[in-house]
Amino acid sequence: MVKVAIIGASGYTGAESIEILLRHPKAELVYLSALPEECGRVNEVFSRFKGRCELEIEPLDFDRLAPLADVVLCCLPHKVSMGFVPKMLDMGLKVIDFSADYRFKDATVYEKYYVPHTDTENLARAAFGLPELFRDTIKGADLVANPGCFPTGAVLAAAPLLKEGLIEPDIIVNAVTGASGAGKNPSVKFHYPNMNENLFAYGIGTHRHLPEMEQIASDIAATDVKVLFQPHVGPFDRGILSTVYCKPKAAITDEQLSKLYADFYADEPFVQLCQASPCVKDVAGTNYCQVFAAAVKGMVVCFSAIDNLVKGASGQAIQNMNIIFGLDETLGLK
Amino acid sequence: MVKVAIIGASGYTGAESIEILLRHPKAELVYLSALPEECGRVNEVFSRFKGRCELEIEPLDFDRLAPLADVVLCCLPHKVSMGFVPKMLDMGLKVIDFSADYRFKDATVYEKYYVPHTDTENLARAAFGLPELFRDTIKGADLVANPGCFPTGAVLAAAPLLKEGLIEPDIIVNAVTGASGAGKNPSVKFHYPNMNENLFAYGIGTHRHLPEMEQIASDIAATDVKVLFQPHVGPFDRGILSTVYCKPKAAITDEQLSKLYADFYADEPFVQLCQASPCVKDVAGTNYCQVFAAAVKGMVVCFSAIDNLVKGASGQAIQNMNIIFGLDETLGLK
Amino acid sequence: MVKVAIIGASGYTGAESIEILLRHPKAELVYLSALPEECGRVNEVFSRFKGRCELEIEPLDFDRLAPLADVVLCCLPHKVSMGFVPKMLDMGLKVIDFSADYRFKDATVYEKYYVPHTDTENLARAAFGLPELFRDTIKGADLVANPGCFPTGAVLAAAPLLKEGLIEPDIIVNAVTGASGAGKNPSVKFHYPNMNENLFAYGIGTHRHLPEMEQIASDIAATDVKVLFQPHVGPFDRGILSTVYCKPKAAITDEQLSKLYADFYADEPFVQLCQASPCVKDVAGTNYCQVFAAAVKGMVVCFSAIDNLVKGASGQAIQNMNIIFGLDETLGLK
Amino acid sequence: MVKVAIIGASGYTGAESIEILLRHPKAELVYLSALPEECGRVNEVFSRFKGRCELEIEPLDFDRLAPLADVVLCCLPHKVSMGFVPKMLDMGLKVIDFSADYRFKDATVYEKYYVPHTDTENLARAAFGLPELFRDTIKGADLVANPGCFPTGAVLAAAPLLKEGLIEPDIIVNAVTGASGAGKNPSVKFHYPNMNENLFAYGIGTHRHLPEMEQIASDIAATDVKVLFQPHVGPFDRGILSTVYCKPKAAITDEQLSKLYADFYADEPFVQLCQASPCVKDVAGTNYCQVFAAAVKGMVVCFSAIDNLVKGASGQAIQNMNIIFGLDETLGLK
Repeated sequence: MVKVAIIGASGYTGAESIEILLRHPKAELVYLSALPEECGRVNEVFSRFKGRCELEIEPLDFDRLAPLADVVLCCLPHKVSMGFVPKMLDMGLKVIDFSADYRFKDATVYEKYYVPHTDTENLARAAFGLPELFRDTIKGADLVANPGCFPTGAVLAAAPLLKEGLIEPDIIVNAVTGASGAGKNPSVKFHYPNMNENLFAYGIGTHRHLPEMEQIASDIAATDVKVLFQPHVGPFDRGILSTVYCKPKAAITDEQLSKLYADFYADEPFVQLCQASPCVKDVAGTNYCQVFAAAVKGMVVCFSAIDNLVKGASGQAIQNMNIIFGLDETLGLK
Repeated sequence: MVKVAIIGASGYTGAESIEILLRHPKAELVYLSALPEECGRVNEVFSRFKGRCELEIEPLDFDRLAPLADVVLCCLPHKVSMGFVPKMLDMGLKVIDFSADYRFKDATVYEKYYVPHTDTENLARAAFGLPELFRDTIKGADLVANPGCFPTGAVLAAAPLLKEGLIEPDIIVNAVTGASGAGKNPSVKFHYPNMNENLFAYGIGTHRHLPEMEQIASDIAATDVKVLFQPHVGPFDRGILSTVYCKPKAAITDEQLSKLYADFYADEPFVQLCQASPCVKDVAGTNYCQVFAAAVKGMVVCFSAIDNLVKGASGQAIQNMNIIFGLDETLGLK
Repeated sequence: MVKVAIIGASGYTGAESIEILLRHPKAELVYLSALPEECGRVNEVFSRFKGRCELEIEPLDFDRLAPLADVVLCCLPHKVSMGFVPKMLDMGLKVIDFSADYRFKDATVYEKYYVPHTDTENLARAAFGLPELFRDTIKGADLVANPGCFPTGAVLAAAPLLKEGLIEPDIIVNAVTGASGAGKNPSVKFHYPNMNENLFAYGIGTHRHLPEMEQIASDIAATDVKVLFQPHVGPFDRGILSTVYCKPKAAITDEQLSKLYADFYADEPFVQLCQASPCVKDVAGTNYCQVFAAAVKGMVVCFSAIDNLVKGASGQAIQNMNIIFGLDETLGLK
Repeated sequence: MVKVAIIGASGYTGAESIEILLRHPKAELVYLSALPEECGRVNEVFSRFKGRCELEIEPLDFDRLAPLADVVLCCLPHKVSMGFVPKMLDMGLKVIDFSADYRFKDATVYEKYYVPHTDTENLARAAFGLPELFRDTIKGADLVANPGCFPTGAVLAAAPLLKEGLIEPDIIVNAVTGASGAGKNPSVKFHYPNMNENLFAYGIGTHRHLPEMEQIASDIAATDVKVLFQPHVGPFDRGILSTVYCKPKAAITDEQLSKLYADFYADEPFVQLCQASPCVKDVAGTNYCQVFAAAVKGMVVCFSAIDNLVKGASGQAIQNMNIIFGLDETLGLK
């Protein structure tokens, strides 16, 4: 049994990770921590765990954590995470980090969108945790940077085209996320009477997932890819629908697209090919990413749907954990 | 033109009152106030008024208000309102108060659910603003206590039975309100990811609308009526569906109920009789109350649907205003 | 491994049963059938099973079914089921029937709400599948009548009071269900623009779950219990919140209620006690029933929340299946 | 008073037109018709009109209609409308047609997406009813082709850029509509349990609003504009959010965009400029179009929000009616 700790366990990604791990046949939750004011019995912090989990969420104590756990799911916020990860690595723990702190190879990019990086030496050590594209580097890693939810959806939608060099390195990513993407803290925009029956764009020209998308897309395409990323939020709990507009270098047909995607994702347990638009409801609560691509008026429009909290966060983290520990990649996730 | 001021204009009932008054052919908005931190152009505080209203919401200043207005819609919170109402009455303004502060004839009942009353002398002066039942006393009033949303719905559902003495004075009111009933301040329970797809009871045994229901029901029935009131909240913006369980003193048929309700509400412009359950969506955004009553297993089950912000608050206030000023009661409301 | 067949697999309860069985460690789906026009690969009929289940939903063929399966989850409609169950029993299969056809001991009650019963001889053979109350009779049964969703919620809310004879045998059940309760066939009432932002009552005085509630409540209370049942439907997918109004025979306190419920449900793996109103979202997607009871104004108000498709249908069926086969009752359900 | 008839009054755009006309101070509803099976008292066909409108929806009878009405709002479906419009014009009625039948100057474009056109001679007579861009031709028209909801939103978002020739004639329109866009007939996709909590694309490469967008955009830009249009549908009743991606011919700043839009729409009563993304909830139930444009990574991203049933259909029709009859353009619409 893999012994798993979660720090920052009191948020939505913490809860989703607990949910998955409770069903995982070869992993065991051994330690949960959060800020002192958010501690308590896990089944009181999240009433849905009543009768299913008796653990205590406790203030972080490395001396208790280290001997108990093999791996830490680090659900701390951006900028906070890098203050804790080095210590955990030093203690010999494997770390899967949910924040952006280890997603960039280049600390100056990180600094531009966040703050100066305080743990640059571990940046190179971090594998980027998108198994469909970087499975091999994840296998041997002791630090995995779990991808953002929007980059996961957008990149999986367009990866076959990027990888094969079939499109111009300049794409538009239009995405709509459900409201759980905003996290658990109440705010004016996400107050029910404001968010219900509403839909709007945000992060116009400034969303932090943009540089991450560009880095991965460029990695895959082996050339600099420019991404115009526009997120929106809609009145539903879970899911991201990404619509990616690409310009093919040469004419391409629906049949060729269909074959390209089928071949590219042939062995992927969590990518499903659709014959029409994916639907966020079909992937809600699952680790699947549904994809579809169509040739439209000389362009290629690619679609993907994921659950932002599962394939976009906790499910993908546990998929990465399974890979690191040599387990069947789908354990706990089907 | 009736000149109308709204104080406490920055909340949902303030916005709804503005909305209605902008369509009112014989009333004119002249003054809006709110707490200093919530002031600003009304079309900035509420973006839906862009291009429709150029007024400023300003900090309360009686010296500015008094010469401008004929009537004040007082949307201040419970306990706060009674600190301002006496002064406005002294200035010769008519006041329609949205809070509970002037709803009780008996200050000791008010004190039990709120705080000691600081303006007891005006309690007797206040008309209870449910036109379908107390139209005559509203006509000459200069102070109207606008009813709570739940009492409005529950009382209109059962009034014909209470008035005619056909039921035992002991009723059960089960009600479900939309989330706008919680007001505009973000909170954990009404954070979109918590409230969406949810439904729960609250105020179990303690809701402040209970004594108000008992007072009105007793008034109508001319005997002490005991009410067991259980509110719930569901995932929609507007509306209250009240399901009222009553025990008839003697057997009563559906036909008799149908005739009773048709006669009782024959001349009411805002009460509509249904042949089946009312639907909250049919009354959303309107000042209508839809009602239906059925004989079921020796009991009578009465239903009503209202929009909690319109017939349950701002619409009813303007209906009361129309009555006070001798206007057609339906102006601005159809 | 228990070999499981599902007939009538193309509806919501069929899909939910498949979902649970795919996670069940000691049961295996072996056969699925539906009406010819609804047949096809299960992952095409329900896109959420893509990559997770390769079975074919096929037209019913007893000769194929019988040698494959140990037990049949019979998800056929009321009135249809009793035409197929006798044959399956004769073939030595165990049957868990989702319809109302075997829920009544008295065929005349069934006839009053449905049609004349065509398999009266198996009525006595059927165990009523509410494990919390009838576990012992389920254990040895080869035919289980899986309860209706409303009766499950209502009865679990009030069972401790009924069983201990603490309340008058005359209760009011007010319930609100999510829209999945309407089944998968499109209709005017459940067309999204009609049902969204709506809430209404239905089945006023006529709902078929009423006699079922009365039978079980009377069984538990060992006296005739009269139930006034009023269902409503609200704008959410899953869940039933039941609010049950009871008159205690003698005064009872919140503390006594709390102890009563804690004792009564002490060993129940799927009943959770709350300190306030249960929330349908907390049980959505689970087999749990959350309950709470409070003393209010001389009455007792009891609440329960279940997922109508899980504890109200497929989850409970599999809980029953686990009991019949001597498995841990919670397998596949936690 | 302008006397208004509505034919095809039993659908959503019919109901919305009735709603607006009931509030219109200088127009009067005189005649409503629909298919025989959808006829009846308007307050029975649409329960929200109880007590507000006593008209009968009756089978179409030109002999009754002609003497009663000045103008007909023709809410018939595409392909059906052109069978009725010539006769109404011949009778001297003015017609505002909601279908696509008179939107295309070129009958061969119409034929490609619909069927061969049977009333080509009136095509040139039809003004395209987007007042912000074609007000002058609407003024004198007796036949107005009311625009599609998607073209209205998309074109208003990008019109200033198109008109001034500031962008390449090749744009991408990504739009999300609420579910009322699907009309009132129940279907599998819009069955509440399927559409709730869902979001998906449709009409991939094939949506009929595409050629209409291209025609108008080309008209405005005075050059051939190619549009890649991708619609989506989300879980809310009303509204369309359009996100339009444009490539500027020369670098442009946010300040320049802001000034461009402010100037272009300076006198428009129904276009509102935002400082951030428009929100569909802010325009729901109104005839406003909120717009915003931003310079992002060398591109311009333009946003608009409208209510698909108001500015996208019935409100715009009545705006057109006001123009035709020389009334204040905003009557009934503010």
